[in-house]
Amino acid sequence: MNILSLDDFSVEEVNEILDSANEFANGKEVDYKGKKVVANLFFEPSTRTHYSFEKAALNLNCKTMNFDESNSSTKKGETLYDTVKVFDMLGVDAVVIRHTQNAYYNELVGKLKAPILNAGDGTGNHPSQSLLDLLTIKREFGKFEGLKVVIVGDIKHSRVAHSNIKIMERLGMTVYTSGPEEYKEEGFNYVELDKIISEVDIVMLLRVQHERHESLMKLSLEEYHKNYGLNMERVNKMREKAIIMHPAPFNRGVEIADDVVECKKSRIFEQMRNGVFVRMAMIYKAIEE
Amino acid sequence: MNILSLDDFSVEEVNEILDSANEFANGKEVDYKGKKVVANLFFEPSTRTHYSFEKAALNLNCKTMNFDESNSSTKKGETLYDTVKVFDMLGVDAVVIRHTQNAYYNELVGKLKAPILNAGDGTGNHPSQSLLDLLTIKREFGKFEGLKVVIVGDIKHSRVAHSNIKIMERLGMTVYTSGPEEYKEEGFNYVELDKIISEVDIVMLLRVQHERHESLMKLSLEEYHKNYGLNMERVNKMREKAIIMHPAPFNRGVEIADDVVECKKSRIFEQMRNGVFVRMAMIYKAIEE
Amino acid sequence: MNILSLDDFSVEEVNEILDSANEFANGKEVDYKGKKVVANLFFEPSTRTHYSFEKAALNLNCKTMNFDESNSSTKKGETLYDTVKVFDMLGVDAVVIRHTQNAYYNELVGKLKAPILNAGDGTGNHPSQSLLDLLTIKREFGKFEGLKVVIVGDIKHSRVAHSNIKIMERLGMTVYTSGPEEYKEEGFNYVELDKIISEVDIVMLLRVQHERHESLMKLSLEEYHKNYGLNMERVNKMREKAIIMHPAPFNRGVEIADDVVECKKSRIFEQMRNGVFVRMAMIYKAIEE
Repeated sequence: MNILSLDDFSVEEVNEILDSANEFANGKEVDYKGKKVVANLFFEPSTRTHYSFEKAALNLNCKTMNFDESNSSTKKGETLYDTVKVFDMLGVDAVVIRHTQNAYYNELVGKLKAPILNAGDGTGNHPSQSLLDLLTIKREFGKFEGLKVVIVGDIKHSRVAHSNIKIMERLGMTVYTSGPEEYKEEGFNYVELDKIISEVDIVMLLRVQHERHESLMKLSLEEYHKNYGLNMERVNKMREKAIIMHPAPFNRGVEIADDVVECKKSRIFEQMRNGVFVRMAMIYKAIEE
Repeated sequence: MNILSLDDFSVEEVNEILDSANEFANGKEVDYKGKKVVANLFFEPSTRTHYSFEKAALNLNCKTMNFDESNSSTKKGETLYDTVKVFDMLGVDAVVIRHTQNAYYNELVGKLKAPILNAGDGTGNHPSQSLLDLLTIKREFGKFEGLKVVIVGDIKHSRVAHSNIKIMERLGMTVYTSGPEEYKEEGFNYVELDKIISEVDIVMLLRVQHERHESLMKLSLEEYHKNYGLNMERVNKMREKAIIMHPAPFNRGVEIADDVVECKKSRIFEQMRNGVFVRMAMIYKAIEE
Repeated sequence: MNILSLDDFSVEEVNEILDSANEFANGKEVDYKGKKVVANLFFEPSTRTHYSFEKAALNLNCKTMNFDESNSSTKKGETLYDTVKVFDMLGVDAVVIRHTQNAYYNELVGKLKAPILNAGDGTGNHPSQSLLDLLTIKREFGKFEGLKVVIVGDIKHSRVAHSNIKIMERLGMTVYTSGPEEYKEEGFNYVELDKIISEVDIVMLLRVQHERHESLMKLSLEEYHKNYGLNMERVNKMREKAIIMHPAPFNRGVEIADDVVECKKSRIFEQMRNGVFVRMAMIYKAIEE
């Protein structure tokens, strides 16, 4: 089955995927004996998501094929459908796709034999990121209901924010957003970071995509750090059991101070570890169901 | 053994490779148990051929190594021989090579331990493409003798055309060529497309390589489509059992109309599926013989 | 354990690694059954070293993940530590790293679970190259003590030279250096090539990195070839049992004449074969100890 957006899954189904991921985290093994091939098709650069999906596939003893857009026929003007269809005809057992276009999968759904795993579409969805965030939260707090989170940064252009806000609210969490005025999105419970920081269970930082949006941002990186960056002074105002998350890659000294990255409250690297288990669960589900 | 050009194989030998491919298509399994390593060395971009060879190797339970020219020592001015020799000394069991230079393999033959599988040389040969075209035809019509095919497009610069015309004629097929005057090659049975289309069993389209040869072509892409493109009007003039082929990637709206790509007569995606079986047969033959 | 520089190993330990490599050369098998994953992280182009490490990992029946810097988040300004940490958190069993920065590993040591295999750092160390050079010498002469070697070329910018000189002297070899004045490094036993060539057991050539340092070199490539290049005339002055080595890639007609590359005294391609065995020993040691 395709896994495109968490919107397509009920709260029960989301919890089932998380339980499956948790089993993998606790040592469950699935061995496809090299008989399944997962194709990773990344039309946009990625380190974490790409290699996390690849490691997940290898852990399940799948083989992988890694499509390098920079060295391919898409240079010859081939459409997304025609490129993906190649891998489908080659007989791969699942396709993991990241693409710059929102909901790129609409032109693929129903036309492929292989299930599609969405590894991020434009500013739309990023279900594997949301699931790894949720797994990290569930393993930390044992529940979602009643938890408070503030997401800080470029809400408007972030598929992580968009994916997370919806599913977190469905799971009974209270979601606040914060950050510069120009990144604010209406209807998303905007608050001042310094007013809310002592009340939340989770501070979730977003990446300042200064290579893309610097012109959009009125603040310098220094001002961003001062006003919205998480430094130890702010960390010290957080609740005792509160945690810090970031989808990474992060900008040290911009949205996060250098000494916060691996501080006691940070779960940033733990998120990466959980990402593999979540993607094992996704690939397993996609192939089996 | 090396597989460089179908010119080196008798008609009987070509049919033997096709029979072997057909066995793989029908479920035959060969398991090298991860003990053989196939190196894919692509000095020119490719999606289909590269990943098809890779999938074929994985299906045989070989391991693969994928040489990315853009990130290599060829940037340091290393010769083709010196680069390929590296992989030979590393102990790989076969090298799959695509290179822009016609008959690049002449400088390699007899100097490597690993067999060479030619994945396309300049405007010269493309044996795996020819074999998959032939397998598609054989599975469709059960024979070659007496079949008529028209190859439409840039005959002059196409290694697909060059490879196919010779072997098809040897197999007893009648081959016509068509397309714009500037792409015509002498001695290749040139006809007007609209005069021959109702008489052939196969319409084989070639890609308009407008990123390479636009300056050479006197027609606009619109004019090309009008004069030589396969649209439904032309498809409707084809014989009842006739089929459409294209080595891909194709330009929708140029050499082929959008609605023809997956019409009932089209075998374009079927060709990609057959490509894996043909390449399994080639790798198997190269390693074993 | 990490393998960063041969400086960290005693002469006995270096000989143990060489003995282990020699066992692999003689057919010893280690089978990790696909349960170990080696990540190759190359932040600088490489053919030989990268694919040699990959082949070594595959020979041990490890899986591999190949990080392509050109298609990654380092474009988003991520630090080396943050990038490598990703792979560590993904749970890989060893990281092979090449980086332009000397001693890049200082910022990583003690912070990773996975062992680091240094595949070359700036102008610093290149332990796997030194070990394969040593294995080639040991298999040829059966000993190191008392052997004389001249290293010819850009001593100053060569991590191969730096790595080799130290370990060879520790192993009891006499090391001379030669080449153009501007590449000379003080304290490294500089001699005229033509005065020493008939006395040494090994002529080890370095690559003229003309794409990097042409402006530094006062000689034309022709002059370099005439003054320091190894041609058959010079080869004929070498001792009967003396051998020629080069880390490759080599420039035919610059530091080495075309007909010398595969002459009877050359071990250049043999070095590449030995590289796989040395790297198998390194990966095995890194994972096991």
